[in-house]
Amino acid sequence: MATEKRHLDQELEAIRENLLKMGGEVESMVSRAIHALLHRDDIEAQEVRDQDRRVDALEKRIDEECLRLLALQQPTAVDLRFIVSVMKIVNDLERIGDSAENIAFAVLQLNSEPPLKPYVDIPRMAEITQGMVRDALDSFVGRNAALALEVRSRDTRIDQLYEQLFRELMTFMIENPENVRRALHILLIAHNLERIADHATNIGEDVVYYLEGRDVRHPVRDAAGGTGE
Amino acid sequence: MATEKRHLDQELEAIRENLLKMGGEVESMVSRAIHALLHRDDIEAQEVRDQDRRVDALEKRIDEECLRLLALQQPTAVDLRFIVSVMKIVNDLERIGDSAENIAFAVLQLNSEPPLKPYVDIPRMAEITQGMVRDALDSFVGRNAALALEVRSRDTRIDQLYEQLFRELMTFMIENPENVRRALHILLIAHNLERIADHATNIGEDVVYYLEGRDVRHPVRDAAGGTGE
Repeated sequence: MATEKRHLDQELEAIRENLLKMGGEVESMVSRAIHALLHRDDIEAQEVRDQDRRVDALEKRIDEECLRLLALQQPTAVDLRFIVSVMKIVNDLERIGDSAENIAFAVLQLNSEPPLKPYVDIPRMAEITQGMVRDALDSFVGRNAALALEVRSRDTRIDQLYEQLFRELMTFMIENPENVRRALHILLIAHNLERIADHATNIGEDVVYYLEGRDVRHPVRDAAGGTGE
Repeated sequence: MATEKRHLDQELEAIRENLLKMGGEVESMVSRAIHALLHRDDIEAQEVRDQDRRVDALEKRIDEECLRLLALQQPTAVDLRFIVSVMKIVNDLERIGDSAENIAFAVLQLNSEPPLKPYVDIPRMAEITQGMVRDALDSFVGRNAALALEVRSRDTRIDQLYEQLFRELMTFMIENPENVRRALHILLIAHNLERIADHATNIGEDVVYYLEGRDVRHPVRDAAGGTGE
């Protein structure tokens, strides 16, 4: 039994390593997509799009390993929660990769025209969002439930920045029709950053479930009614 | 053993019923959000937003039931695949609910201004998308892998309609600044329909996994490079 348990531990450790590898790929996609925007770098944007295939392959592999362990080892308690959480986290990571790919696509469109204006809000949104993804993954590695929950609190700031940018870009479009195309692509980038922050929040919630067995999703909303996403 | 198996079957049946209940709620949210758009009905749009709480609650409940069965009954083979698929499907249904809520929010904004133009593409997109969600759920109930895979094939049509609408709305915005605000909200609705179609595709892929044990996600992309979402 002790040998079996040790064997399961080794398998779980292998899954953890693959998850971190996938997390690293996804973090690099987001950071390179934003770098490609700020430096108007088409090649880097194109590379981000290629990188998404590796992320998709890792998703399938980790899912397969989790399913095999569930079927053969029938893990319980914290081991079971670990596996279920990993499957959920992997799903969110894959969607973060898709969002980074969408950003890279918008960058390619933007690079074909002169810049609309210096980017200020996007780098700020990107910095907070990237910190959320990093801390959500760190909370998993370091088994830190407080950090995992804290990630969610930053989501409000991202929603505010997105609202603000939305209004600003709408004004640009109304002021001058020549701005419309570029403003739409910038809006797409902001929208995808906002989604990445949502996924980081989900990952934080999954980490709390893994560590404490509590489902902290969908907290009661305030009277104003957030989207709850 | 036979009694235990029968007991597990009853539990799985209860989960299936809750999933269908959740599917019904989500389908009704999408259909009412579109109805509220076409009939400029603020009250209905507001009700869709309230409905999302029931969907969130069902998600948590079904997830909890699945986790309990995984921990206590240690199901194998098709029973295990059923539970894992249900957890994934529930996740996609919850996101479809969020998208319906986003549509309802945009409808409330649109209703406060005169109509931009008669809606033509949106009802068409909505019809295909709703059919995809319905058939994805039906393929689960009827254990129909062919239908589940067929759902995915319709996603291309949705992507085309979205691209077309995107270009059309961009033209509206460029032609007249007064159109910008309304066109943006219509674009948001189209974007959310496109996402709902993606989630229906995911559900179809999960049904194939449940029925056949094959992971059919992320098929090899064509040279043009789809988003792979």
